Amino acid sequence: MAALTNGQDRRARFTAVFPKLQKELIEFVIAQGFPQEALSWFQRNLEYNAPGGKLNRGMSVVDTLEILRGEPLSEEEYFKSALLGWCVELLQAFFLVSDDIMDTSITRRGQPCWYRVEGVGMIAINDAFMLEGAIYHLLKSHFRKDSYYVDLLDLFHETTFQTELGQLIDLITAPEDHIDLDRFSLRKHQLIVIYKTAYYSFYLPVALAMYMAGIQDQAAFKQAQDILIPLGEYFQVQDDYLDCYGAPEFIGKIGTDILDNKCSWNVNVALAACTPEQRRVLDETYGRKDSICEAKVKEIFLAVDIPGKYAAYEQQSYEKINGLIDGIAETPGGLKRDVFRAFLSKIYKRTK
Amino acid sequence: MAALTNGQDRRARFTAVFPKLQKELIEFVIAQGFPQEALSWFQRNLEYNAPGGKLNRGMSVVDTLEILRGEPLSEEEYFKSALLGWCVELLQAFFLVSDDIMDTSITRRGQPCWYRVEGVGMIAINDAFMLEGAIYHLLKSHFRKDSYYVDLLDLFHETTFQTELGQLIDLITAPEDHIDLDRFSLRKHQLIVIYKTAYYSFYLPVALAMYMAGIQDQAAFKQAQDILIPLGEYFQVQDDYLDCYGAPEFIGKIGTDILDNKCSWNVNVALAACTPEQRRVLDETYGRKDSICEAKVKEIFLAVDIPGKYAAYEQQSYEKINGLIDGIAETPGGLKRDVFRAFLSKIYKRTK
Ligand SMILES: [Mg+2]
Ligand SMILES: [Mg+2]
Ligand SMILES: [Mg+2]
Ligand SMILES: [Mg+2]
Ligand SMILES: [Mg+2]
Ligand SMILES: [Mg+2]
Repeated sequence: MAALTNGQDRRARFTAVFPKLQKELIEFVIAQGFPQEALSWFQRNLEYNAPGGKLNRGMSVVDTLEILRGEPLSEEEYFKSALLGWCVELLQAFFLVSDDIMDTSITRRGQPCWYRVEGVGMIAINDAFMLEGAIYHLLKSHFRKDSYYVDLLDLFHETTFQTELGQLIDLITAPEDHIDLDRFSLRKHQLIVIYKTAYYSFYLPVALAMYMAGIQDQAAFKQAQDILIPLGEYFQVQDDYLDCYGAPEFIGKIGTDILDNKCSWNVNVALAACTPEQRRVLDETYGRKDSICEAKVKEIFLAVDIPGKYAAYEQQSYEKINGLIDGIAETPGGLKRDVFRAFLSKIYKRTK
Repeated sequence: MAALTNGQDRRARFTAVFPKLQKELIEFVIAQGFPQEALSWFQRNLEYNAPGGKLNRGMSVVDTLEILRGEPLSEEEYFKSALLGWCVELLQAFFLVSDDIMDTSITRRGQPCWYRVEGVGMIAINDAFMLEGAIYHLLKSHFRKDSYYVDLLDLFHETTFQTELGQLIDLITAPEDHIDLDRFSLRKHQLIVIYKTAYYSFYLPVALAMYMAGIQDQAAFKQAQDILIPLGEYFQVQDDYLDCYGAPEFIGKIGTDILDNKCSWNVNVALAACTPEQRRVLDETYGRKDSICEAKVKEIFLAVDIPGKYAAYEQQSYEKINGLIDGIAETPGGLKRDVFRAFLSKIYKRTK
């Protein structure tokens, strides 16, 4: 067998932790005296919904802790940071299972959405709750004695509520069945991406690792957030851009944001830059499940030079975030610039 | 104006706390810079779903604390215990909003279920999450400095997960669209009622008050649970019994458990006591949306003497629970028998 590359190795080691967590959760339910069909159901819910994504959020807890420590992690540190990483993945699974119901989506990660699996249906709502519930069960059984246990709980609660707020404004701004571009604005787009994505995808994993590294200074958490929230915003703008301009063979899907009436960066920039005539066309074509309408939207996107504006936005974001990273005064036991550089370098000019 | 009765007064004082909590939650969202439509939506979600029930669970936190203290509560103690009571009501609202979607229910507390309100639909799923999220926001802002803060968090997490487990086994045991009485059993009925109802309705409010009263001894929590779980089970058996045998003018609704294929105490006792011929009839008539089928089920319930068996069950439960209450050794700063007597006396031989 060929040697594993570093990246594959890293992923395989992280992935190997999940079955242990699953076993622990199932054993808890067995201990409550639940019948076999309930155990199997919960097991299948965990397996179907928690792994199977890119796992970047989860793995970044481990990576960040390693950078903060400045040396390889002990077995125990690895396991505990990977457990926190899996809690981030469980939180995401809770959001995705329910988001797919709210959006009446068809597929997720190359398989049918959980609620569309035969026999599941609306039970998926309670299954989403149980994915969230699993987080607190795991945190309690592995971190209850740590001084920062309560900080982990507060952080998960706060991040969950922020994400729910982001989901709310997304849902009421861009319902698929009621198109009204007057509801859109770059300010709302920013709120949506920060609350719905940036907090849980970027700040949460780093802050979890910071607590494990023993960081207590609230100013350090504030500084991390002040870098990671713009970084997460930049990441989501890229996601919106690539939905329209990425190569399907790179991004792994054909973008549907225009068809789905998404309050994306592209349409908000176009709305701010277009002529009254272009606006009239956008009003008539955006969010329609029709490829001719979609093509007309894309024409206007080109006419107002979305690609040029994106290139400028990307350069500006990159420079701003780099400046924020340079502003970190590294002290022993404190933040390290490399934590943030690692994120930025993975993201800058990405095409997938 | 006529003097308020004690009961009305008690309810009015508890109810008056909710607008303060709502204001605090909305002000938090305002501080995040969210637009007016998001504020209004969240406000409406809170108002529509949190108050409006019987509030027994919430008020029992206050009552229990008062009994444990043995004297009237200070203004601050009243407020904080009522806040915990409202957190129990918020937890219930989170469960009910989502349960109504999963059960495709029509009305709740005399108004349309939230998901059936014009313009809400599946956004109700995220709204349910936000009702749960509100709990942790309120706990943090009022209890973060208390030594038992982390105990409150653990208790809410544990209770939430227990209720979700109860909901899971209920959902897979008695789906409305697939009738199979072989799935039912008294053992499963017991698991469903304990996990889905007893923990959050009976143990949670008392344990919250115990933490506020400064009780730390784990044995006291264990003893409270050992009384309140059978008490909650007895309460739910009554609920099932009254669904069939209660007077609609007392219980405020016409029971539909038989039509809805519910895994209720009545049918489980009937299944354990019936002849093969009666079983055949039950298989053909239980869970059908048909009043003739319902009448046949009720005939068998009478033939196997559900009312007599219920009277025996009630007497036996009453005596068992009374015995458990008598077993409490009252010590200063510890449990008080009156906490449990207060619950039992409200429940014993209730007709509504
Ligand atoms: Mg979606
Ligand atoms: Mg969505
Ligand atoms: Mg996208
Ligand atoms: Mg229901
Ligand atoms: Mg139900
Ligand atoms: Mg009932």
